[in-house]
Amino acid sequence: MTAVTRLLALLGTRLPLIQAPMAGVQGAALAAAVCEAGALGSVPGATHTPDTLRAELTALRAATDRSWNINFFCHTTPVFEPAREAAWRATLAPFHAEAGIDGSQVPPGAGRRPFSAALADALEPFSPRVVSFHFGLPDAALVARIKRWGSVVMSSATTVEEGLWLQQHGADVVIAQGLEAGGHRGHFLSDDLSRQMGLMALLPQLVAALDLPVVAAGGMADAAGVSAAMALGAAGVQTGTVWLCCPEATTSAVHRAALTGPDAAHTALTTAFTGRPARGIVNRAMRELGHLPATAPAFPTATAAMAPLRSHWEAQGRGDFTPLWAGQNTRGCRPVPAAEVVNTLAAGLTRGPDR
Amino acid sequence: MTAVTRLLALLGTRLPLIQAPMAGVQGAALAAAVCEAGALGSVPGATHTPDTLRAELTALRAATDRSWNINFFCHTTPVFEPAREAAWRATLAPFHAEAGIDGSQVPPGAGRRPFSAALADALEPFSPRVVSFHFGLPDAALVARIKRWGSVVMSSATTVEEGLWLQQHGADVVIAQGLEAGGHRGHFLSDDLSRQMGLMALLPQLVAALDLPVVAAGGMADAAGVSAAMALGAAGVQTGTVWLCCPEATTSAVHRAALTGPDAAHTALTTAFTGRPARGIVNRAMRELGHLPATAPAFPTATAAMAPLRSHWEAQGRGDFTPLWAGQNTRGCRPVPAAEVVNTLAAGLTRGPDR
Repeated sequence: MTAVTRLLALLGTRLPLIQAPMAGVQGAALAAAVCEAGALGSVPGATHTPDTLRAELTALRAATDRSWNINFFCHTTPVFEPAREAAWRATLAPFHAEAGIDGSQVPPGAGRRPFSAALADALEPFSPRVVSFHFGLPDAALVARIKRWGSVVMSSATTVEEGLWLQQHGADVVIAQGLEAGGHRGHFLSDDLSRQMGLMALLPQLVAALDLPVVAAGGMADAAGVSAAMALGAAGVQTGTVWLCCPEATTSAVHRAALTGPDAAHTALTTAFTGRPARGIVNRAMRELGHLPATAPAFPTATAAMAPLRSHWEAQGRGDFTPLWAGQNTRGCRPVPAAEVVNTLAAGLTRGPDR
Repeated sequence: MTAVTRLLALLGTRLPLIQAPMAGVQGAALAAAVCEAGALGSVPGATHTPDTLRAELTALRAATDRSWNINFFCHTTPVFEPAREAAWRATLAPFHAEAGIDGSQVPPGAGRRPFSAALADALEPFSPRVVSFHFGLPDAALVARIKRWGSVVMSSATTVEEGLWLQQHGADVVIAQGLEAGGHRGHFLSDDLSRQMGLMALLPQLVAALDLPVVAAGGMADAAGVSAAMALGAAGVQTGTVWLCCPEATTSAVHRAALTGPDAAHTALTTAFTGRPARGIVNRAMRELGHLPATAPAFPTATAAMAPLRSHWEAQGRGDFTPLWAGQNTRGCRPVPAAEVVNTLAAGLTRGPDR
């Protein structure tokens, strides 16, 4: 059985294509449209409580009876460190003052929750075909529970070492996340960003090292990108950025404008928005705070004090403090229905070399 | 005419494959073997005087009558800054002391020379089919002279902006250098390393933006890598790392051992060896000096004070202070003749999708 056939059997889809889960810019509507077009749609779960998760998945199931993927983060919620939070607020103080925000009144908080038994309780009745994770996997008991109820488990690897770890700890599918990819880096065994690899180098090494189907992620925006990844031995392709301008996404106007404008030529990894490295279009916050500000507190607590700055500037039509998540290739960002994006990418699965 | 056909007409080769010029690890022997096997062999010119260049090219012409490429750097030789040199020597002092080296007796110096009229004088009688550059292009008069005598001009781009600049300034072929690539980064319009892109994102954007043939470089180690690059619209492929263990290369024993051992899993960009970011296998020098040491003087002057440390440790069979240049994918490094590497890569030019 080829890797593609194995992946299709696991995902239960017609096409070996996955729409990446993207918290803050999409929900059930995009996922359902992708599913209906033959690929695997994904819903981001990281910002949900059990109650909002139930509501989201109820909407998803009403919109499609195809298989879908729900994604969770599996970080450890950090112990609140008042000194670090104070240092971060001191760093942001001039920006708060400029925006007329009383920083002392902004509540600290997490904003994103790791996967938990409570979320698993809410999830189980929905029988998700696929459950994917970022930042490794949850503890062994939760992984075992998910697999027992029949879900396929996916997670991202940014190095060969992480891919081997995921294979050993119960993943059924490994996503090779090249550093071209937008949003949060999935690394979990080392914080050393110099270990992050381009997809052209990472993907064939993971394919060679693992017995599992490997899905390519990062930098692919069209049929040619899909075709390249398949040539490297991918079982399938996951794309994120290419969906951000679809009408079914909830991407903000400032984010859509950035994705299709000249600023999209320069993305970078930054911890300024959440405390963990994620790739976004370089904006004022990243330029003036530095891409990797020394005082940013642990993921995801950096978000709280940034949130009112984001709101303030977005209300003025500016993305200066908005996390403008994007990969290194935004050429595929067009305001077309998700089904059209599926068809565009799917063309890369079948075509031979055109030369 | 397809991009591949255009490239072959420019290079004068049977195959659209280029062996990357790699100073310090190869010369005419590797280049000639590659040429004889149907690809474009390259000779690094950056460490040559006019006299040694003549000798090298005389040897090359004796070994092959096929077309070949000679590569030069085109940096500006920095003004000697005694304070920066002193700071660098202070940083290296503990390492000099450990190795029993009197740092005050190590002469400063450059080690690598930019392309110049004197080198052009030496070069012209050899009628090189291709002259390639790293770090942009030499001044307009030198570019015009090279083109007047009939050579094809290539240079590397690490961003779309650099590709457009090269096209406007006389390049005939642009190499898309993905950040997976080993050795020196070719960037020349910005020092901001966050602008460096994975090949999967960079290549299709350069292909779309330029009217010139674009050659892919970075991360490709086998037929699958070549096939992937061609799927993305490359006119051809340049590889470097994959040749380092060939018997025709002059790669040192410590370097060969590192390329085929576990340390090769972690490469990083470092300025510790030359003053300019280059990708190599992380070793003691990079770990203890930092990958990007603050005191490293301008390229290429950082090399001088490091050189005796390299020699000291290599004499003991250790690569602790050797620049172990390598890309992010060393899977192709095998002790096989260059002709076999050519055949391995060439298989990726013709095969269709195998799924």
